[in-house]
Amino acid sequence: MTKRIAIIGAGPSGMAQLRAFESAKAQGVDIPELVCYEKQDDWGGQWNFSWRTGVDQYGEPVHSSMYRNLWSNGPKEALEFAEYSFDEHFGKPISSYPPREVLWDYINGRAEKSGVKDYVQFATAVRWVDYDEDAGTFAVTVEDLKTGKTSTDTFDHVIVGSGHFWSPNTPEFEGIETFPGYLVHAHDFRGAENLAGKDVLLIGASYSAEDIGVQAFKMGADTVTFSYRTEPMGFDWPKGMEELPLVSRFEGSTAHFSNGETRSFDAVILCTGYNHNYPFLPQDLALDSPNNLYPDTLYRGVVSEHNNKLFYLGAQDQWFTFNMFDAQAWYVRDVILGRIQLPSKEEQRQHMDQWLGRFGRLKSGDDEIDFQADYVRDLIEQTDYPMFDLDEVARIFKSWQQDKMENILGYRDRTYRSVMTGTMAAEHHTPWLRELDASLTRYLSEPEQDEIADMLAGRRTGSKH
Amino acid sequence: MTKRIAIIGAGPSGMAQLRAFESAKAQGVDIPELVCYEKQDDWGGQWNFSWRTGVDQYGEPVHSSMYRNLWSNGPKEALEFAEYSFDEHFGKPISSYPPREVLWDYINGRAEKSGVKDYVQFATAVRWVDYDEDAGTFAVTVEDLKTGKTSTDTFDHVIVGSGHFWSPNTPEFEGIETFPGYLVHAHDFRGAENLAGKDVLLIGASYSAEDIGVQAFKMGADTVTFSYRTEPMGFDWPKGMEELPLVSRFEGSTAHFSNGETRSFDAVILCTGYNHNYPFLPQDLALDSPNNLYPDTLYRGVVSEHNNKLFYLGAQDQWFTFNMFDAQAWYVRDVILGRIQLPSKEEQRQHMDQWLGRFGRLKSGDDEIDFQADYVRDLIEQTDYPMFDLDEVARIFKSWQQDKMENILGYRDRTYRSVMTGTMAAEHHTPWLRELDASLTRYLSEPEQDEIADMLAGRRTGSKH
Repeated sequence: MTKRIAIIGAGPSGMAQLRAFESAKAQGVDIPELVCYEKQDDWGGQWNFSWRTGVDQYGEPVHSSMYRNLWSNGPKEALEFAEYSFDEHFGKPISSYPPREVLWDYINGRAEKSGVKDYVQFATAVRWVDYDEDAGTFAVTVEDLKTGKTSTDTFDHVIVGSGHFWSPNTPEFEGIETFPGYLVHAHDFRGAENLAGKDVLLIGASYSAEDIGVQAFKMGADTVTFSYRTEPMGFDWPKGMEELPLVSRFEGSTAHFSNGETRSFDAVILCTGYNHNYPFLPQDLALDSPNNLYPDTLYRGVVSEHNNKLFYLGAQDQWFTFNMFDAQAWYVRDVILGRIQLPSKEEQRQHMDQWLGRFGRLKSGDDEIDFQADYVRDLIEQTDYPMFDLDEVARIFKSWQQDKMENILGYRDRTYRSVMTGTMAAEHHTPWLRELDASLTRYLSEPEQDEIADMLAGRRTGSKH
Repeated sequence: MTKRIAIIGAGPSGMAQLRAFESAKAQGVDIPELVCYEKQDDWGGQWNFSWRTGVDQYGEPVHSSMYRNLWSNGPKEALEFAEYSFDEHFGKPISSYPPREVLWDYINGRAEKSGVKDYVQFATAVRWVDYDEDAGTFAVTVEDLKTGKTSTDTFDHVIVGSGHFWSPNTPEFEGIETFPGYLVHAHDFRGAENLAGKDVLLIGASYSAEDIGVQAFKMGADTVTFSYRTEPMGFDWPKGMEELPLVSRFEGSTAHFSNGETRSFDAVILCTGYNHNYPFLPQDLALDSPNNLYPDTLYRGVVSEHNNKLFYLGAQDQWFTFNMFDAQAWYVRDVILGRIQLPSKEEQRQHMDQWLGRFGRLKSGDDEIDFQADYVRDLIEQTDYPMFDLDEVARIFKSWQQDKMENILGYRDRTYRSVMTGTMAAEHHTPWLRELDASLTRYLSEPEQDEIADMLAGRRTGSKH
């Protein structure tokens, strides 16, 4: 009997899984029956911008943490699909750091090309998953959010691709309930236009803080202050941007920092990260992990140790993204197709312990990059996903880190060469710091030089820099 | 065997249900085993202010729509418990429109007095409810949000008291994704301090729009504009406040209204209401209704027509609140205790149709008030909940409506007489429009006259009026 597979989420991971099976089907392989449940109205997961915050039009927590004018914060050459290049999609070289809409267009392009949309039930939330020990199957209960119809279906495997950057971590700070200004978690931040002329505090020292802080500065914030718990990001900040240690308490609009300093703010953005959250899974199936490069209990980073019929995609903290999800999806596909045999539970545990041991010894960002490159390599070697030059991608990541240390406001103007096609990225027509229009149309346009000169001279509104 | 009852939510409705059973127990009646699941860390439901927006510290949608400085927008004499008076709780007369913290203190006082806290499992979310036709019982699956532990328990009855003013309705407006200012649904509005000096748009024409608009004006907004779909609220607005028809589209910070006018705004607050949302219930058990005074499929407003073992509390749109929840809880208790026999399904349908018929003929706010007074009376007459002068409460509601038409900025300075104790409300020490401190401490204090004079003279900061 044909196996039945439930895929939860049609973001980059879920789409990779559908693409993986389609790729086998195109080679004449009998593939299982696939059903992908996606609570949003379209695929793309995190890459679907929504103006809504908190909960969406169906009352479900908003998935995407994207904001207007978000540009990739890593070079696209590090996330390119090995079997669908930027060249193939855009037909011309583009810059290394495209805005959100451009990246969405790219991942959508691959998915459209492979024709996997019919597998996806959009606007459908997974409510509960039960595993039947006797039958060895999962009962997946879902709600069609447009009609309210609830139903339960049986599956041989469940693949969780719902992501772990959608459920905000919002720690308590003494007195924060009295802060009178604009206060949101980065997840609900939608644009920096209204931060112009403001004093802005970002609590956190990771990607969200860095990028929203830079964005606020770009859009004209008066001052941008970062507050770190363990250590500062240490970039070469321009005048008006600074890093302070952790906020110890708020008193009205005043933040007191642990070093005794105080500042008054108009806006506070909690860049305090995200939690793994699987409200549709019983405890024994739900991954319980901090956000790190090697979540425990996942053999090869994807197979649940507690139930080998359950898989997770993209559950790692990420240097590698789209092409790592592909590597995982191809591996999971081959486990399900029986092409890969899982070892005994003991061997799985030993294997995880080895990787966890190495993970525990990582000392630097560069170590992390090499670790994850090796992880991706290990997966690709076991499937027919096209191997690519992972060492070169690791080099790109390391170089990107260096670019940021040199110029946190300008690193997005650098260009890299594709490891997939050898194409050198184009220089973008407008320096990132002056480019206020993040639309696909503007990005792909070829503006006249005088138009660009206008923008550089600050004759467009919205930025004071 | 002792029946087992699951109560979902420890807000005013769930607490009323616990209190109802405790009241019978105090009379020597054997009561069922009660388990109340509450996703928040404390009871009080909507009345628990949270500084968080969107999702809470556990990743669950934030329940409360309260904001700092919220004061009751109806006279407390209309919501007083018949068996726990404001006099009993505060030991002295207080004003008719207390702030949130004072009302929370009152409902907490009754719950503490009756000692029902042990029945409540806090920080526990209900994930899924299944009804077993053969056994005639419900399987309720919950998650302990602090530990992640999930478990399933069996119950004879489920009582849904999770409320219907927590899941925001967020309609689409053309161009809203480009609005660069502060944009939230009223559910995520937490205070008007940062609206000082701003041009504020409230989309909606019901309580949220009215109250947040008035609050914005009180806290110094430059202009307050309301946008209505069907008809304006029609209050006697002061200079700086106006009503316009529905927004047809946004273009950046400019709103275009359906009458052709345009205005530019710094902030947009969607006061577009709430949806019934029961993500833990299968479709045949989930109430599907607009927000109105008589949701169909609920016999006597509480018994699910589809499954007479399932009850809803507080599912109505509300003139009456706390004491109506009491009336419902006492009725549900007596159905469960077998003191009240439910009629046949046909008779239930006839009964609902009669009430729905009357509901369909209501023409005015006054009609609605009388309708709901009769509904509450019908319930109380069937139990031992203390009957009170419902006609007098209806008169208070109607008078309140009049007060608002006369002075939307000053109606909260009016006073009413308790129908429960005959006590006349106290005049508050400070006129509402000038009172910027909504704390319990300040409210119960007896400030010196010169302190009040200072405030009236605007020598305290924060308000320009």
